[in-house]
Amino acid sequence: MNYTNIKYNIATQMKKDSFSARLTQKIQAKQTPVLVGLDPRFELIPDSLKKSVDTQNPFAVATLFERFCKAIIDIISPLVPGVKPQCAFFEQLGVPGMQCLSNIIEYARQNDLLVILDGKRNDIGSTASAYANAYLGSNSIWKADALTVSPYLGDDSLSPFVQLAEERQAGIFVLVKTSNAGGAMFQDLVSNNKPIYQYVAEYVERLSEESCSLNQLTYYGNVGAVVGATWSTQLSELRSIMKKVWFLVPGYGSQGGTAADVAGAFDENGLGAIVNNSRGILFAHRSARYSDLFGENQWEKAVETATRQMIESLAAETSAGKLKT
Amino acid sequence: MNYTNIKYNIATQMKKDSFSARLTQKIQAKQTPVLVGLDPRFELIPDSLKKSVDTQNPFAVATLFERFCKAIIDIISPLVPGVKPQCAFFEQLGVPGMQCLSNIIEYARQNDLLVILDGKRNDIGSTASAYANAYLGSNSIWKADALTVSPYLGDDSLSPFVQLAEERQAGIFVLVKTSNAGGAMFQDLVSNNKPIYQYVAEYVERLSEESCSLNQLTYYGNVGAVVGATWSTQLSELRSIMKKVWFLVPGYGSQGGTAADVAGAFDENGLGAIVNNSRGILFAHRSARYSDLFGENQWEKAVETATRQMIESLAAETSAGKLKT
Repeated sequence: MNYTNIKYNIATQMKKDSFSARLTQKIQAKQTPVLVGLDPRFELIPDSLKKSVDTQNPFAVATLFERFCKAIIDIISPLVPGVKPQCAFFEQLGVPGMQCLSNIIEYARQNDLLVILDGKRNDIGSTASAYANAYLGSNSIWKADALTVSPYLGDDSLSPFVQLAEERQAGIFVLVKTSNAGGAMFQDLVSNNKPIYQYVAEYVERLSEESCSLNQLTYYGNVGAVVGATWSTQLSELRSIMKKVWFLVPGYGSQGGTAADVAGAFDENGLGAIVNNSRGILFAHRSARYSDLFGENQWEKAVETATRQMIESLAAETSAGKLKT
Repeated sequence: MNYTNIKYNIATQMKKDSFSARLTQKIQAKQTPVLVGLDPRFELIPDSLKKSVDTQNPFAVATLFERFCKAIIDIISPLVPGVKPQCAFFEQLGVPGMQCLSNIIEYARQNDLLVILDGKRNDIGSTASAYANAYLGSNSIWKADALTVSPYLGDDSLSPFVQLAEERQAGIFVLVKTSNAGGAMFQDLVSNNKPIYQYVAEYVERLSEESCSLNQLTYYGNVGAVVGATWSTQLSELRSIMKKVWFLVPGYGSQGGTAADVAGAFDENGLGAIVNNSRGILFAHRSARYSDLFGENQWEKAVETATRQMIESLAAETSAGKLKT
């Protein structure tokens, strides 16, 4: 941990432990690219867990969130390579929520899961350094394997993340084409025959190419891209632009993305993408698909079944099926 | 505090207490639009304060940051309308840093300062609601008067902030044209003869017009814009596009912006903009301008002098001088 000037010492990194290498290894070990989003939403948590919780007491709600997220991790850690905690739901509970987030990251790491923290952070360079220092790598105080970052502030806001990610064997995922409908408002504006998100994509590809050559990585670098499952045409288009880039694909399930929609994100070996599902797994017991099969008191079974079915769907409808050898 | 579904109940708000009204009132009371950025950077904090602090202990560093920021607040609270804590520097210290941030926001409020939290947050709508719930207004757990937010995810990511800001008499500042050089990379791409930042500006203007009509505000709404002091030409151009919008202007001082550069951000009454200075005030004792006048042991005097001189410069070179009646 270092709160003073951050020194970049890329030469000393252990290349075999790069984020991209670890991600590949974990996906191959679990034979699936499914990522489980940890978005604890009070109103959707099983009633049996929250019945005695005082909603006005942030400590009590944070304790509930921790208990719920740890139960989820217990269920899904044998099945998937990683989790994606969403910062907003923890920040909402103030300091107790941040303690809960810290505990959950630690618990996920103990359970051998990669932790991709969804904070969508960024700022001008000297401040971006502080965010990167906060979150990236097992030596950081928050200990995330990777962090999502926003591109609006441009190259000098991204470079502190890129540099520190390399130094600490961590990764970043830059927002390129987000899963929400409103994402099109600015991302799809066209400049010189190219939408803005494509400019971002080309820059991310450049960063990841540099990461590959630095780390002697054959496939993908440590700079990834967020591309929503809800834009299947653009997913294939962006895969052809970003050849060296891991895709983090949100929007599967509750937001409408299907296994067929995300097929274009993968390479021929079933690598190159991780597909996130938050609500569709965490709150499966409330979904139309599983609520008849599993009652409220079988919510854990619903979580496991939804996870297994997503793994099967991706294996059946995308090249991720080739991971199963 | 409400962690379940957020209900919008705009009709019940107290219009006279809107963020825009409070900001106007505080600027007029202090007769200046100077905002002090709370960016505690360990390496720049006076040596006399940090000499016994163990840099490897986040609790110790957080205690130092709290002591330093409270000392800054003691000096500047009689002089300026508000502060802008930068989340990154607190997040960097993990949970102890978040407790420190919470304590500093409370201390600033006790000292009658507006708190504009610089988090540059955003996400898709349902998650953006959680961020808005976390930060906006005195009823929220973090209790910020306003929050900076990023526009990359488009309208449906901004609307939860806008709606909750109205309900809780809070404000937001949307990144339009950031102060860093790299900001131009995507923000200045031209689509249909207009740079991207201008599309964002036009949308922010629309949101703030709606806020004005909702709150019966004559001048400015509760949806502001971040426009860097380092882009003086664009500041005037953007003022003509965003007539109903408060400007939060970073980049003054250490980043190179001068009082003359920011003149275009103000209206003829000296309102419409707040100008932030972080390093130039907090660490004035280390600057070329003040280090000869004030030694390390007079750092508080340097902070006060730098603040007063910025107030004077803005009064002399912009219409903010008209606030002094």
